[in-house]
Amino acid sequence: LDNSNVRELQLKKFTREEATEVSDIVAAEIPFTIFFNHQEIVTLLCTPSYLKELGVGFLQSEGFIKNKNDILFIHLDDQRGSINVITEGESKIALNTLGKRAVTSGCGKGTIFYNVIDSLYCKDNQIEMYLEPQQIYKLMHTLQHGANLFLETGGTHSAALSDGNEMIILREDIGRHNAIDKIFGECLLNDSDLSEKVILTSGRISSEIVIKLAKRSVPIVISCSAPTGLAVELAQKTGITLIGFTRGEKMNVYTNDWRIKT
Amino acid sequence: LDNSNVRELQLKKFTREEATEVSDIVAAEIPFTIFFNHQEIVTLLCTPSYLKELGVGFLQSEGFIKNKNDILFIHLDDQRGSINVITEGESKIALNTLGKRAVTSGCGKGTIFYNVIDSLYCKDNQIEMYLEPQQIYKLMHTLQHGANLFLETGGTHSAALSDGNEMIILREDIGRHNAIDKIFGECLLNDSDLSEKVILTSGRISSEIVIKLAKRSVPIVISCSAPTGLAVELAQKTGITLIGFTRGEKMNVYTNDWRIKT
Repeated sequence: LDNSNVRELQLKKFTREEATEVSDIVAAEIPFTIFFNHQEIVTLLCTPSYLKELGVGFLQSEGFIKNKNDILFIHLDDQRGSINVITEGESKIALNTLGKRAVTSGCGKGTIFYNVIDSLYCKDNQIEMYLEPQQIYKLMHTLQHGANLFLETGGTHSAALSDGNEMIILREDIGRHNAIDKIFGECLLNDSDLSEKVILTSGRISSEIVIKLAKRSVPIVISCSAPTGLAVELAQKTGITLIGFTRGEKMNVYTNDWRIKT
Repeated sequence: LDNSNVRELQLKKFTREEATEVSDIVAAEIPFTIFFNHQEIVTLLCTPSYLKELGVGFLQSEGFIKNKNDILFIHLDDQRGSINVITEGESKIALNTLGKRAVTSGCGKGTIFYNVIDSLYCKDNQIEMYLEPQQIYKLMHTLQHGANLFLETGGTHSAALSDGNEMIILREDIGRHNAIDKIFGECLLNDSDLSEKVILTSGRISSEIVIKLAKRSVPIVISCSAPTGLAVELAQKTGITLIGFTRGEKMNVYTNDWRIKT
């Protein structure tokens, strides 16, 4: 366990019998400010690990950068908690629409997207990747037992990238979005192909999570928790297989169940 | 259970023995855009209940409005999922600093605040409100058993306002911040005093949650989940009693335990 990701403190622990002063650890949380071509974009609250990957992954998720070649220079300041990502040409569309909403008919199917950028990246994923239920149960088991920061603090989410058999990257963060952006940022910096990969997450699957996957053409997402209605709708329309409530040897497959081999 | 807060859908349920097509419900998720004096501020993803309260609570949390008297007019558009809150004078400081970061020495104690607004609202809470452990356990039990949307979907967070004995407001949302802002928005519209109240939450306590409470002078926050290091630091310095891991007849009191009667 990386010490910078936890903070030790004193607290009073109450049980039915007694109240005792004890020492324990909680998950660390820091503000991390992302600049794009010297312009301040956002401050995320996050776990202080893999900050370069988080910054790059966030900027890709929000449409500022598309791939590694877009990046001229990255300046990460660990001490101040900031990153500045420099590109050649500014991505004006992203700057103008960050946080802004547009109701469009994305994918030609009438889906409501809440950000105009998202519809530009939307594709109907037809990647022929197949998983057996036992592979899925084993991957979730591996995620849960590899989430060291959660096991120590109970205060973080975990996410992982897998090829269906092995875990390739496992990241933890106080934010479920951040854990996934850390993975995608690392993949961008390594020029990794994501089209036959699976994302696992300990968190609930909301629409933002599905959009992050759709932009990278990831065909399958697996969670031990619940999806939202909008997430299921978007997964259906973008061709993503959405699996929730993966617990022990049970799971719910909400969309595109043709990728499950039975 | 309000039907607009859930969505019914078909899914494939896998168990060790079989895979069956079933009908089930998941938590609804909608994009909700907040305008302040006709200017677009943010689009939240939320559960479609108590939207007026959410919009008002969010704007208060972010420093756009302070109390009910600031509001001239509220236009809520349920169909398009938007709200426009009109005030007499524009809150220029909030517009200029939304999402922006400033490292200041708030409270005169050297705390790092990530938003310059937050330091302006920071007070050292000395309110003499006392709770017995049994009151706290009972309130958490009531929250968990009153969270109908979570009990049906597993996909939402719950939050509640209490005077220490009775539940006054209980709200559920796919976002833990939204559930709390819905409560605070309702309190603002009702001119409710929050200085001798308790907030309960099913979610983890991060710094943003503590800042929301500090701004309203709420002295106590109770969660069944974990806090972050920065949340504990801010609760210590703003005089808030932060209680986590409230489960059955156990709890961890991280800060200002003088409010617990033993």
